[in-house]
Parts: sequence; C-alpha cells; structure tokens
Amino acid sequence: VGEAGRVPGSAGAAGWMPAEAGIRPQIRDLEMQNIASLAHLARTIPDVITLWYGEGDQVTPEFIRDAAKAALDRGETFYVPDMRGWAPLIEALSGYQTRLYGREIGTDRSIVAPSGMQALYLGLSLVAETGTNVVYLEPQWPNIRAAIHLLGAEPRPVPLALERGAWRLDLDAVAAACDARTRAIVFSTPSNPLGWTASRDELAALLALGREKGVWIVSDELYNRLYFAGETAPSILEIAEPEDRALAVHGFSKAWAMTGWRVGWLVHPPSVGPALAAMTQYMNSGTAAFVQAGALAALEQGEPVVAAMRERCRAGVETAYRLLGPVNRIALPQAPPGGMYVFFAVEGEADATALCRRILEEARVGLAPGWLFGEAGRAHLRMCVCRDPGALEEACRRVAGLLAG
Amino acid sequence: VGEAGRVPGSAGAAGWMPAEAGIRPQIRDLEMQNIASLAHLARTIPDVITLWYGEGDQVTPEFIRDAAKAALDRGETFYVPDMRGWAPLIEALSGYQTRLYGREIGTDRSIVAPSGMQALYLGLSLVAETGTNVVYLEPQWPNIRAAIHLLGAEPRPVPLALERGAWRLDLDAVAAACDARTRAIVFSTPSNPLGWTASRDELAALLALGREKGVWIVSDELYNRLYFAGETAPSILEIAEPEDRALAVHGFSKAWAMTGWRVGWLVHPPSVGPALAAMTQYMNSGTAAFVQAGALAALEQGEPVVAAMRERCRAGVETAYRLLGPVNRIALPQAPPGGMYVFFAVEGEADATALCRRILEEARVGLAPGWLFGEAGRAHLRMCVCRDPGALEEACRRVAGLLAG
Repeated sequence: VGEAGRVPGSAGAAGWMPAEAGIRPQIRDLEMQNIASLAHLARTIPDVITLWYGEGDQVTPEFIRDAAKAALDRGETFYVPDMRGWAPLIEALSGYQTRLYGREIGTDRSIVAPSGMQALYLGLSLVAETGTNVVYLEPQWPNIRAAIHLLGAEPRPVPLALERGAWRLDLDAVAAACDARTRAIVFSTPSNPLGWTASRDELAALLALGREKGVWIVSDELYNRLYFAGETAPSILEIAEPEDRALAVHGFSKAWAMTGWRVGWLVHPPSVGPALAAMTQYMNSGTAAFVQAGALAALEQGEPVVAAMRERCRAGVETAYRLLGPVNRIALPQAPPGGMYVFFAVEGEADATALCRRILEEARVGLAPGWLFGEAGRAHLRMCVCRDPGALEEACRRVAGLLAG
Repeated sequence: VGEAGRVPGSAGAAGWMPAEAGIRPQIRDLEMQNIASLAHLARTIPDVITLWYGEGDQVTPEFIRDAAKAALDRGETFYVPDMRGWAPLIEALSGYQTRLYGREIGTDRSIVAPSGMQALYLGLSLVAETGTNVVYLEPQWPNIRAAIHLLGAEPRPVPLALERGAWRLDLDAVAAACDARTRAIVFSTPSNPLGWTASRDELAALLALGREKGVWIVSDELYNRLYFAGETAPSILEIAEPEDRALAVHGFSKAWAMTGWRVGWLVHPPSVGPALAAMTQYMNSGTAAFVQAGALAALEQGEPVVAAMRERCRAGVETAYRLLGPVNRIALPQAPPGGMYVFFAVEGEADATALCRRILEEARVGLAPGWLFGEAGRAHLRMCVCRDPGALEEACRRVAGLLAG
C-alpha cells in the first residue's frame, strides 16, 4: 500500500497501519494458498491441458439454459418470497429425493442456497461457532476445513488410512477425535479428492456415533450421482430419520454441468427449517428465481445428462488407470467407485508442488497438489477426469511419458 | 414433529428431542418474525395493494435480461476463476465508481457477491465475531441486526432521534456506544426504512470516530442512487482513504430493478482484498457469470434506468406526502431526501401490528410494522413508494380515508 493509502489521523501512536491489521485474527490465518500460482504459470505455456479444477469441460445443456432464459422472458426478476426456495423447485426436490432414496423426503426438508458451498456454509453456521470443534475426514476438499476455520471453530482432521492400496475409514479414530465441544462430523461421499465412498454400513456407523455423542453428521453429497455402481452413492438420507442431527449438502454443479450457476441445496431435519430460512434471509436473502428455474429443468429433464456425466467420469477413471497404471513410479490406489478425480502418489516425489510444476512445464498438464487436501495426502496429485476422452487420454499419456522416463 | 421423526437411540436419557435442540443457541434466538403472517392474511383479501416489501413493481429492463441470456448462449456456465468477480464487471465497477464519486476507486477495491445481503454478511464476517459488538443506527433494516447476531457478536443499536419532525444523527451517542470490543459502526444511507441520508459532514465525523477508535465503518449504500438531490447520496467512498477501515455495501437490486438477481458488491481497502477473496471461496465460491453479465449491462447502459427509478421514488414520496399529509393523525417527518420508503406514525396507535392488520383488512393496503426496524420506530409504519403512480395514489387514498375517518 503506497502513499495514496495512508490514513491521516488513524488510530495508534505506532503510526499508520493498513486496514488489514483490523480484521479478525481467524481470517488473517485463513488458508489463501491454492493453485493460482500454477494457473498463472500455465498461461505462459502453450497447449496446456488443465485438470486441476473440479469442473467438467461441457457447457450446461441447452434445455437448462433455455429454462433460465424463459424465466427471464417471463419477468421472473423479483424476490422469491419463500426463503427456502422457489416453490416449484422445493416441490421437485422433494419428489426427486423421495424417488432416488426410496424414502419420503418432504418439502420441509430442503432449502435452496446460492451454491453448494453456501449450503455447506449455512449448515456449518447452524451448529459450529467459536469454542467448538468440527471433525472431518481427510484428505478432503479444502473448503470444508477453511469454512470451519472461518466460523471460528477448530477443524479436526481424521485421516483416512491408505491400507493395501485402498482408502479406509477408521471409525475408532473418528470417535476418538470427538469430545464435549465437537459439534459435527463432516465428510464428502463420494469424496473429493479420493472418490472414496462411504458404504451404507459406514454411514450407519457414523450416524450411530453422531447419535451417541449428540453430534451432527454433515454429509457432502455433491458427487453422489457420479457413482459408478448405481443411480446414487449411498446417502445419509437413506438411513437417517427426519429428526436425526444430519445434514446433506447437495448441488447442481457436478452431475448437471452447472458449476457456474451457483445453486445447491441443504437437506435438513424439519425442525430446523425455520432457523435455516431465517439464516438464509440474513446471509443471502435467497437464490435468483431464474437460476432456480434452470435447476428445476435439470431435475425434471436431466436424468440423461446425469447418466452421461456419470459415464464420462467412469470412463475417465478407466482411462487414467489404464494409462497411468503401467508406470512403476505411480502408486494408484484401488480405482474409486465414484467422483470425478484420480488421486495418486509418485514414488520418490515428496514435494507435490515441485512435481506439479514439473508436470505443468514438461508434460503441459495441470494437476492439483495433494497438500491442498490436508496432510493425509500431502504428496499426492489430484487429476480431474471429467473431460473430453481424447484430451484426457492425451494428458494421461503425457504424464505417463514424463514419469516413466 | 410426529412419530415418523423419532430417532431411535438418540442422545440424552431425558428421551427424544427434535434436532432443533442441537443448533447454536445464538440461532435459536434469531429473529424469525416478519410480515409473513400479514402476507398470509393478504392472500385471502381481494384487491390488496402490498407496499411492505422493499422492492419496486417493474421487471428488470430487457437489455439487462438480454445480456444474461446472451452470456448463457455463449456458454458462460463455468466457474468464474477470480473469486473477486468476473473480470469485465470488476473493471466496469472501478470505472463506474471512479466517475460517480470523483476519486479513483481501483479494480482492487470491489468484490462481487451473490446479493448485497451477502456482501454485507461478508463485510461483517471480516470484522465481527463472538465476544465483539457492532454499533448500528436505528431504526434500521432488520437484516443488519440479525446478521450481527448470527455472527455471534452483540448488536448495539443507537437510535436516531426524531427532533422537530426530522430524524437526526446523535454522534455523541454513537461514540458512547463504542467500547474496546466494538468492531464496527453500521448504517444505511439513504436509510432503510427512514430515507434519512448522512451528509458528507456526518460521514466525515463517523469516519473520524472510526479512526479514533480503530473501529470499522460499514456504510450500506444500496439506495445511494435513489437520492433526489443528485446523482448519488454522499458516499463513504468520497471521503475515506483507500486504507481506512471502511466498507461500502452496494447492490444492483434497487436502482436497476434487479432484486431477484441476487448480485451486489462490497467496496473495501485494497489490503483486505486477498482475505475477502478467500472468504468468498469458502462461503459461496463466487457469483454466476451470466448474472454478472446482466450486472455489467446495468452498469454500462443503465443510467436511464437509474434516473427513472430515482424519479419514480421521488414522485412516490411526493404523492404519499400530498395524500397522507392532510390527515391530522398521521405524523409525517420531514420528507426523506432519498430511498424508496415513507416511514410515519399514527397518533393514538401504539401497536403497529394491530394497525397494519386493520389497514390491510379495511383499506386493503399492505404496510410493514415499524418494530421490525427496532425500538426507535416501534409504532411507525413503512410504506414502499417505488410503485406504479396510479396504484400508489390509490393506496395512499385508501390509507388516508381510513385514518381520517
């Protein structure tokens, strides 16, 4: 900050300070590292295939865009009066979830949010605060740790263990991490970045643990339709009673190619619906009606899109395993049963940042370093495989060529 | 919650509890009262003119909707990579604000949020937390108090005083309300619900107070273009140095008829930009690109819209004062210099809820009770005047007829 930013007469005899000195300490500690520096470098390299973001490469299907455009044409540009969401979408979510999970999920169970991220933040804000802690499984999407931290709570990672090539949940370790100040246990299933997917028995065990300890279960299910052995990965919604302390985070981003729409939803016990509606009013005052109209079209007509996206991810995992598997130095775990990522280590490479940089510069492929997802996968690399098959195959050949050489 | 919601084996020897028992105490205390019960009643009454929401009655202009539709057609359905916002909008915001306020507001000063409400919440989250307090002027838009409360901080209202028919800022009272735990002073200008507008001198005095105490100034300027004596109401951005602890909350909702778009922005010191970008990633991960494309069109081509909206509000205030003024029981303060509301008391009527109900049932006009905005205007009524002139005139005649009778 130069002279222009100087504040005459600002507080403190010690002289001038930038405004940044006046923010919450918790926020000064916020993780701000990400792949921005790699992305910056990538712009200087021709013909890079970037697989670091958790996003496919397909534009949202036309019928979904048309539904939003039609809502704009109809003049749906006013507040949505119900803070839970646009009534037709709330209805459709109930029907969709009831069909998918084989048990009644009423219209009093879902609230729409401007992004799955905001749905997660809303859910965490309901239960976590300064003086509490939140347990979560690791490696994990970094936003979960950061959101807990931002809310003033202590993030408590519990590592999944990599045993004989498979990531495994250690329930005893989860139980041991909980204490009297623990408010929630959070995980993503299928996991970002692992693809690890909680079995129905594991979800039941986590729910039982939550009941025993009076702790909330927050199941991030953004990837649940991208599960290769069925219509959906096992969901906490299949087993939790309505009034269990259980929240499920959902969104349209992944399975319907709607990352840029910023719309998701939180499934919750009926009794906390009024609190969540009030919180929504005071956090964002709702999601655009025409965005919700697009989401409605996705739910009503989007099953072929979901099926195609699932197949794209399944084939992407297969391609990556076929091409990376033969490289001796690449340590692939068991192939993930869902999600849109392959997460792997490279023998002799402990510094994922240096390795990502080398792969970017020499193989012209963008991967995300594992430390973004916590200590448990520090030296790993994450590759998004939800891509055009030709581009993905080329990227995998480049990486394999570099690491085999 | 019925039998279906019962949780087998749920925690606590005292037996089953709804999940609501497990949420943050701060949220159980959250204000959930609003005009929903009146709105519910209104649906049973024919020919009601509802003037209780802070929203005009005009659909967003077509060129703004067209810009969003064109972005959808171009396939702008991916993540916006910069958490501060879509680059063309960030550029345009800098130019717009630099022109409007007559001093350089660089591209490192604004961050886009999915609603002005979220911009406010983001700003408050930057500075307020459990164990702190936030001072705010009252009567006030209830979301300000509620957002402070939701963040775990103590909301400290300082009443504006109604002196000889005018709402006046008591700077000494603001100073007296600040202590070592005060993190911010928040106000809206032009005010919702008052239309009271801080003069440049008052803003300078508030800023000086903030500097003296090391406290942030949060100026909610959602209505600043709806100011009847110029292009903009006085803004904190005209007087604060870039590195002052000052935040300005802005949005497209009011002046561009975009309430339903859920897009706003926060103006901040450059030094806190990285923190706000990280917070954005962990709270909402950005605002839809096609929504931002609409916002860009509003900035670039929307000045005639703003001028028409300003005139609609100015004429609305004039109509309300002309028709309500002659009624002896109606105590109108000095006409507001900006905003979209008229806020008035009725002699002999201390219970605003009962009076709103009577006006709804007998005059078929929907007004908002003053206690929503805090103690200082408890018995007042708020009327939104940003309406079709004929409908507004009819509503004012009905209210005048009832209260004169």
